[in-house]
Amino acid sequence: MIVETKFAQFDSLTLDCGVTLSHVDVAYETYGELNRDKSNAVLIEHAFTGDAHAAGIDKETGKPGWWDNMIGPAKAFDTDKYFVVCANVLGGCRGTIGPSSIDPVTGKPYAMTFPMVTLSDMVRLQKQLVEHLGIRRLLGVAGGSMGGMQALEWAVRYPEAVASAFPIAATARHTAQQIAFNEVGRQAIMADPDWNGGNYYGLQPPARGLSVARMVGHITYMSDESMREKFGRRLRIKDGPAFAFDDEFEVESYLRHRGRQFVDRFDANSYLYITKAMDVFDIANGYHSLAEALGKTQSRFLVISFTSDWLYPSYQSLEIVNALRRANRDVAYCELNSNYGHDAFLVEVEEQTELIRGFLARVYREAAA
Amino acid sequence: MIVETKFAQFDSLTLDCGVTLSHVDVAYETYGELNRDKSNAVLIEHAFTGDAHAAGIDKETGKPGWWDNMIGPAKAFDTDKYFVVCANVLGGCRGTIGPSSIDPVTGKPYAMTFPMVTLSDMVRLQKQLVEHLGIRRLLGVAGGSMGGMQALEWAVRYPEAVASAFPIAATARHTAQQIAFNEVGRQAIMADPDWNGGNYYGLQPPARGLSVARMVGHITYMSDESMREKFGRRLRIKDGPAFAFDDEFEVESYLRHRGRQFVDRFDANSYLYITKAMDVFDIANGYHSLAEALGKTQSRFLVISFTSDWLYPSYQSLEIVNALRRANRDVAYCELNSNYGHDAFLVEVEEQTELIRGFLARVYREAAA
Repeated sequence: MIVETKFAQFDSLTLDCGVTLSHVDVAYETYGELNRDKSNAVLIEHAFTGDAHAAGIDKETGKPGWWDNMIGPAKAFDTDKYFVVCANVLGGCRGTIGPSSIDPVTGKPYAMTFPMVTLSDMVRLQKQLVEHLGIRRLLGVAGGSMGGMQALEWAVRYPEAVASAFPIAATARHTAQQIAFNEVGRQAIMADPDWNGGNYYGLQPPARGLSVARMVGHITYMSDESMREKFGRRLRIKDGPAFAFDDEFEVESYLRHRGRQFVDRFDANSYLYITKAMDVFDIANGYHSLAEALGKTQSRFLVISFTSDWLYPSYQSLEIVNALRRANRDVAYCELNSNYGHDAFLVEVEEQTELIRGFLARVYREAAA
Repeated sequence: MIVETKFAQFDSLTLDCGVTLSHVDVAYETYGELNRDKSNAVLIEHAFTGDAHAAGIDKETGKPGWWDNMIGPAKAFDTDKYFVVCANVLGGCRGTIGPSSIDPVTGKPYAMTFPMVTLSDMVRLQKQLVEHLGIRRLLGVAGGSMGGMQALEWAVRYPEAVASAFPIAATARHTAQQIAFNEVGRQAIMADPDWNGGNYYGLQPPARGLSVARMVGHITYMSDESMREKFGRRLRIKDGPAFAFDDEFEVESYLRHRGRQFVDRFDANSYLYITKAMDVFDIANGYHSLAEALGKTQSRFLVISFTSDWLYPSYQSLEIVNALRRANRDVAYCELNSNYGHDAFLVEVEEQTELIRGFLARVYREAAA
């Protein structure tokens, strides 16, 4: 399946902070065919540093999508049956408007003059895209991590437009620890003199700070177990400690490499804006309780978490499940066994496929009936 | 109890890396009185960023020691009965020779020309100090975190000199995850241009990098639970999100503050050297197994861990305990309930006191018999 990223442009988008953006570009991809009554559309939400390229092989780069093992013919999100859409988030740096985009007023990148965005803003823009594609009701909204948080936001904000929601390895709100890890990443970026108040476009980007931020991220995406299995205490230099500050342990080498790689594909200011949007997000904001907020939904829910995920631990998924049950909503919950930590939602294909395929098929059947 | 830090100087110390240091200063404190047969000495080992000021009120600063709630008259380490010693570690920056010390050859700070040190080197220097104080056998060696790792090293390296050992919230070796967190701290420091290859003495120190390193550290010292209890999602600005990158959440403000504070009291190069020493440490190095290494000991062990400590989780203490049991050594183990994460060893005074006081008294009684 060879795919290419498409673009839509909207005249304006008014944000929660009060600012109205104009010339709002959105990068998105679609897989499969929209059926005649436009009832088979599934929106996939990417995680923090993901992008619109969720599935297939990119026409230009030859790279598979980040959830290619889950989206395609006969896969969890079966493109023989469903029309699957994925868009890069607002505030991102992979084709959708964000701090690295050109401000039409000044002709220069927004940088830190880009307005603060929220997950609600991201979802509002996706709603415009979905309508632009002629879809009034989504069969499903699914995503892991920040993608799952957006799936929740969709279900609460647009109850009539979401038949089913799949928040995977997600939360209704960040804890202090989750905010703290994000704050470390932000501080690492802003501590880099090359960050320069966000004005580094066309100059040297804050590569060292962004790289450190990514290293912290990677530790939190893996589990103690998976790191022990993957690296243990293995040395790169086989004959013992080098007595130096080189990357003598394999885990050091891996993290440094991943940090450097990240700099080539991600914008530091987007890192700041998107992590902040995640931290500020609380689905119960404006309601008296989580159950009241989730009571607004009319979707069927399949909530999935993973045993070794300590960044978005199962108790956070259970909090969502319990609130949905208190609100008398239709919810199935599954905690899957995995050693992969938070990364499990990208890796544990088989069991997720079984759960999602069956759930989605039932929702589709019943919607058609 | 008003105390002051004392200093000893040794002519030389030969390190595992082969280098011999000269003019080796050691900062230490003592509490209580050494008895006539010098059989009541307990050596306290500080954790990574600790120092020799373990107990009492410092004569100059007026500050209490870092384990003052555990060391003193009628406390866990009862200074009415025992002579308690604590020394700043080799490679440190609180009075004992380290990278910020003056190299007598050049007349300038060693900086990164300071040789690599190991936990074994640290303990070898402490052995010199203990002998200097006229003590041939320690009644006990105790410490939390890196302090507990040194207690293990003491018991293996100098079996006849250690009657009892108390590794608390410690490990026999770092896992990949522990190395990874340390590596993030090192990279944050070395990414700061002010680090300047370690040559910042008399100039601006790498405050931003060191501060980020400390922020990461603080997250790992606390637990998800304790962060939720202490900060939750509380905002500093009471009327909702500020829509800015200020420290709007209390947890952000706390971490930034702790990061800044740390810069005033800790040397960035010491951070590099000591974390590296911890990562390289493996008590089983040079042996076929952990049980063989720990079989070298002749000490009685009291091993303590804490339920919510995810940086040095209980399974690491159990690994030590099981190896000691396989080697037919005398070991008691207790996992204490606590929400405080790794910090618990500094906070959970009551139960630790009960365990340690009883254990130490028995060892003292039996040694005298």
